[in-house]
Amino acid sequence: MKLLYPTSLKLDVSKLEGFGIELHPYDVKQQIPDNLLDAEVLVTWCNSPDNFKHAAQNMHKLHWIQSLAAGPNDVLNAGFDTKKIMVTTGSGLHDRTVAEHTLGLLLNAARRFYEMRDYQVQGKWPQHLGGPQPDKVPGTFTTLEDANITIWGFGNIAKYLAPYLTAIGAKVRGVARHAGVRNGIEIYSDDKLAEILPKTDALVMILPGSESTYHALNADRLKLLPKHAWIVNVGRGTCIDEDALNSALDNDAIGGAALDVFEKEPLPESSPLYKQKNVILSPHAAGGRPRDAEQLIADNLRRFIAGQQLKNLV
Amino acid sequence: MKLLYPTSLKLDVSKLEGFGIELHPYDVKQQIPDNLLDAEVLVTWCNSPDNFKHAAQNMHKLHWIQSLAAGPNDVLNAGFDTKKIMVTTGSGLHDRTVAEHTLGLLLNAARRFYEMRDYQVQGKWPQHLGGPQPDKVPGTFTTLEDANITIWGFGNIAKYLAPYLTAIGAKVRGVARHAGVRNGIEIYSDDKLAEILPKTDALVMILPGSESTYHALNADRLKLLPKHAWIVNVGRGTCIDEDALNSALDNDAIGGAALDVFEKEPLPESSPLYKQKNVILSPHAAGGRPRDAEQLIADNLRRFIAGQQLKNLV
Ligand SMILES: NC(=O)c1ccc[n+]([C@@H]2O[C@H](COP(=O)([O-])OP(=O)(O)OC[C@H]3O[C@@H](n4cnc5c(N)ncnc54)[C@H](OP(=O)(O)O)[C@@H]3O)[C@@H](O)[C@H]2O)c1
Ligand SMILES: NC(=O)c1ccc[n+]([C@@H]2O[C@H](COP(=O)([O-])OP(=O)(O)OC[C@H]3O[C@@H](n4cnc5c(N)ncnc54)[C@H](OP(=O)(O)O)[C@@H]3O)[C@@H](O)[C@H]2O)c1
Repeated sequence: MKLLYPTSLKLDVSKLEGFGIELHPYDVKQQIPDNLLDAEVLVTWCNSPDNFKHAAQNMHKLHWIQSLAAGPNDVLNAGFDTKKIMVTTGSGLHDRTVAEHTLGLLLNAARRFYEMRDYQVQGKWPQHLGGPQPDKVPGTFTTLEDANITIWGFGNIAKYLAPYLTAIGAKVRGVARHAGVRNGIEIYSDDKLAEILPKTDALVMILPGSESTYHALNADRLKLLPKHAWIVNVGRGTCIDEDALNSALDNDAIGGAALDVFEKEPLPESSPLYKQKNVILSPHAAGGRPRDAEQLIADNLRRFIAGQQLKNLV
Repeated sequence: MKLLYPTSLKLDVSKLEGFGIELHPYDVKQQIPDNLLDAEVLVTWCNSPDNFKHAAQNMHKLHWIQSLAAGPNDVLNAGFDTKKIMVTTGSGLHDRTVAEHTLGLLLNAARRFYEMRDYQVQGKWPQHLGGPQPDKVPGTFTTLEDANITIWGFGNIAKYLAPYLTAIGAKVRGVARHAGVRNGIEIYSDDKLAEILPKTDALVMILPGSESTYHALNADRLKLLPKHAWIVNVGRGTCIDEDALNSALDNDAIGGAALDVFEKEPLPESSPLYKQKNVILSPHAAGGRPRDAEQLIADNLRRFIAGQQLKNLV
């Protein structure tokens, strides 16, 4: 049996030894060489579309793809026969990095660092943003303290993020498919959005890209947010209707948006988002650094060989 | 007995009632009217230099000034007779707001939001900052996780900040006048700086402005920092030798600086800091929102009347 691992990140392959299978590195930007096309297991990270297309057409023995991305949309859209091939995600490998980045985006929005920057490059001092400030004025989002923050998509990443936010004094709620209390945070099912969005100062979206989340934040739901509310999206760009978002921003119907993911990436130069006043753009930079990938791969490899249910199965 | 309170912030004066003294509002940007010049207690917040000068010359019965600033350098430099007049600071009223802002500055530096902004305003996608990234490369400051963060000036604000940082996974040390363990953080006295600075990824300065802290971070100490280290200053601008800092930045001898306070404020347009590459400028915006000021004033008022030691006495 052969497992192919990507050279697109540093992996300590010694941690995958001991299962009696062949471990082969491969270049994710090239076609997989003929002598490796009979592999049963493919680990993926930032593979080129071309690499994927070729693999989907030529790896006839493939049984399992372990993506290191939390949202393996690239694998799922590549044409692999997912009836025959199991796909597991890298959910869990990006929790801390994405949570940290999300916190940064929220503080950037609340403390208006993006606006300060524009003054700085002009050699100017933004007096209106400094000195004595009104404190926690209702209908503003200027601090995380006492802010109502709704996390839509309350999975692995949210479980890291929520305690950072509560530590700073935010009031955190979650929205997911299933209601309940998770890690001390009250989670609502998404049929409660009409009640929750109007009470939200910042909406943090950490939804996966899927049919069920396509344009989850649409014009109707945008209308439910208060005028001062910020939207932060670190899940998938497809979860927001960008045209509706641009209209809401044009009309000052929301406070602003800090976006790490987009319907199309890189965000096309023609996108009106570049020119919106209260928008913070981040180039899909929240994750991109899987942590302890070896541990997940080894764990799933053991399960695979033992014929047990894999972790993070799509 | 008269207490004068400023109208430069919203105060719930009913919380100061019950001591049997006269409470009078006053405008901090005007001279104090003649009929109030005989007050014994003056509460200050963002008073104009002219207001202070006039008060120092004409309030002959003044016994106590309660500043709401954590660092009441304005009061101390106004010419009041501090042999006769007690000055108490607003230390404690700014802890959460300054800690939050400082965290934002650190994340801005580590996650390079300032650089992303420069691309955004040009309508460009900063590909080098997004997508797959090398993770926690030694000799870089790209995440707070496992970063060595030294807080120089470990007082009230630092006690709020430190747990935010440790929650994200940073390794936090403190430097103050007195060594010991505070709130679970190891604090070193400043004669240990030569050992600590070379092991620092981010140096957070929260020192008060005083003779003993003047140019605390000078050319010699800057040399002790690693080339990738960032400096964050939210204490007082006088604590850094800005010329030495500019030289270090010119020579890429440090990673960058995120500054909320400056030797001269507003930062003069001629300052080379505006044009430095890895510098984040914030217009003294960390604090500026005293929280629960009434409680501190009332507590100190009770002590004052009872002839007890005041809190936050300079
Ligand atoms: N920006 C970046 O660099 C970056 C990096 C890593 C990941 N991501 C994105 O972040 C996403 C989330 O990652 P994760 O590891 O936290 O995933 P996860 O653990 O699988 O959590 C997903 C969450 O979304 C909820 N959800 C799914 N479909 C939903 C729907 N239709 N309506 C409401 N809630 C729904 C789930 O609800 P239940 O819990 O009720 O099932 C769950 O709470 C990934 O899929 C990926 O797209 C982005
Ligand atoms: N940027 C803003 O908007 C803003 C807002 C509020 C405050 N501030 C500034 O932040 C400063 C700190 O506030 P805080 O409330 O945390 O003050 P604090 O509680 O009085 O703490 C001051 C700390 O500095 C240390 N220190 C003083 N002189 C020192 C010296 N020469 N060498 C080494 N350490 C020294 C003290 O050491 P010991 O504990 O050992 O005595 C103490 O740990 C204020 O003075 C003010 O200037 C700025």
